Amino acid sequence: MQTPASLDQLIEALRCLPGVGPKSATRMAYHLLQRDRKGANTLASALDTALQVVSHCQLCNTFSEQPICPMCASGARDSSTLCVVEMPTDMMMMEQTHAFQGMYFVLMGRLSPLDGIGPKEIHLEKLLKRAQDGLVKEVILATNYTVEGEATAHYVSELLSKHGVKITRIARGMPMGGEIEHVDAGTLAQAMMERRGL
Amino acid sequence: MQTPASLDQLIEALRCLPGVGPKSATRMAYHLLQRDRKGANTLASALDTALQVVSHCQLCNTFSEQPICPMCASGARDSSTLCVVEMPTDMMMMEQTHAFQGMYFVLMGRLSPLDGIGPKEIHLEKLLKRAQDGLVKEVILATNYTVEGEATAHYVSELLSKHGVKITRIARGMPMGGEIEHVDAGTLAQAMMERRGL
Repeated sequence: MQTPASLDQLIEALRCLPGVGPKSATRMAYHLLQRDRKGANTLASALDTALQVVSHCQLCNTFSEQPICPMCASGARDSSTLCVVEMPTDMMMMEQTHAFQGMYFVLMGRLSPLDGIGPKEIHLEKLLKRAQDGLVKEVILATNYTVEGEATAHYVSELLSKHGVKITRIARGMPMGGEIEHVDAGTLAQAMMERRGL
Repeated sequence: MQTPASLDQLIEALRCLPGVGPKSATRMAYHLLQRDRKGANTLASALDTALQVVSHCQLCNTFSEQPICPMCASGARDSSTLCVVEMPTDMMMMEQTHAFQGMYFVLMGRLSPLDGIGPKEIHLEKLLKRAQDGLVKEVILATNYTVEGEATAHYVSELLSKHGVKITRIARGMPMGGEIEHVDAGTLAQAMMERRGL
């Protein structure tokens, strides 16, 4: 039996979504056509709109509908510290802590040569220019403590230190509420090595 | 910080996909806008096209771009047997076996009152009409052997037997290559109860 061509094309198109293989794509296409045509319609137009209006903030590089995003434009933030994060979600998490009043720079990814993501894809040129605006005194690297996040932090710190920018990295150690018995050995070892005076 | 409204709308729209919660939807939206704008564009137009041209075959109820799907229209199939399956994927699997030459009826779902899928949603009126076209001699129920598939088979068989249609169900038992040691107890019990003479 043949699947209608337009259905095949829809299934193929859904596979551009991360984590969606042939089976999920088929299930999604059936669901949309069978049970949620209204949702499918909304999705198609949301995609069109977002593609048209969403771009990147010229300063912090996050997603924005304006050339400068509301946070960078607000003038209420401390321009002397610049926090470098991987993704907009990381920036949101950081904001929820209320522990940081400075500016952000969002790499929109992490160095990952296997996925074809090199220095150019994470906008390091733009970061270098941003860090040298004359106001930034300290760049705080808040990439993840994963292998890729660590490599990214290392690379960025090499790059910026050449230009005389002060660089710091968020601390490593035991999580809040963490119990020594249950924390992983790597974290505990780091927490021991990086112990600090009281 | 605020997420741009169009990005929020895209994330919300992606949640209409089955199995996609807020976190996956956010990841998908970022991926599409950051790394695969071409794919997003293709997806938007594939959705539009499919919504416009894909409908249901008047005979077998599967997805089709024509009023009668190519298989039903072919005339090469045996009109005296009608195999009832849950989804088009089930029909494809059945076709791959080359064990069945008759016609199909695709319910496009299974009875599942908790998900709001009752007799009307699985097109039982259409099936009843289809089974009484004068040519169909036997209706083979090939719904899944899950709780919902079984309930659906039971409901359909009650409905059709009232109208004097002959009804059969695909066999239950050990899978091909199945080892008694590793098969689950339920399957083994069924295989024992439904043993047949040689």
